[in-house]
Amino acid sequence: MKWLDAVNWTADGLVATIAQETGTGKVLMMAWMNRESLQLTVETGHAVYYSRSRQRLWHKGEESGNQQMVKDIRLDCDNDVILLEVEQKGGIACHTGRHHCFFKQLKDNQWLEVEPVLQDPNDMYQNKG
Amino acid sequence: MKWLDAVNWTADGLVATIAQETGTGKVLMMAWMNRESLQLTVETGHAVYYSRSRQRLWHKGEESGNQQMVKDIRLDCDNDVILLEVEQKGGIACHTGRHHCFFKQLKDNQWLEVEPVLQDPNDMYQNKG
Repeated sequence: MKWLDAVNWTADGLVATIAQETGTGKVLMMAWMNRESLQLTVETGHAVYYSRSRQRLWHKGEESGNQQMVKDIRLDCDNDVILLEVEQKGGIACHTGRHHCFFKQLKDNQWLEVEPVLQDPNDMYQNKG
Repeated sequence: MKWLDAVNWTADGLVATIAQETGTGKVLMMAWMNRESLQLTVETGHAVYYSRSRQRLWHKGEESGNQQMVKDIRLDCDNDVILLEVEQKGGIACHTGRHHCFFKQLKDNQWLEVEPVLQDPNDMYQNKG
């Protein structure tokens, strides 16, 4: 499809994707998509990423239930970064059980963890095989 | 320095960096940093990226004057994405003369340009060599 061809995919067939929370404006996470995951995201209305470590599609929330409902999809000037506006189910985007992934703040040459864990990851992934 | 070693640099020595505008919460752009540019960003308080196309440090605003003053620096759970909170000088982050780079919106299988050009890029880069 033409709109998929417009994306400037990496040599590995990926595009960097930022998820921003609707309402709060919080930047929740950055992940990668391939062509199939972007198409599935559009078709289903749920964020589907491509996991580079697991080398497979990653339906966000497939294990935790913390899906992202997509409200808006943007592409940047160079066609190589996507910005999603999402509603974050469960209020937790990070696998550590935090609201978002950017919880380490640089202060006095140290990374400090400045955001609370809202749910124990062991509980989030209790159904994991 | 230890805090620089904590970053999970790519094989090319880079880290993806998102710039978010303070106040509005707008995601302005995504770019890359190398070790030197991140260190310079911290030391100067201005965003310094690494341009992959030009293969050199890129002091944001060096040609346009549209510098980014850094208010906060975050690192994500995997230590491979940085989130900057910045004050965007001139109100223009994108080289196309728009407020931010994410001006193409997916609608009905088309990318529509939905944000206005605030300044003619020819005027922004008139001093470019």
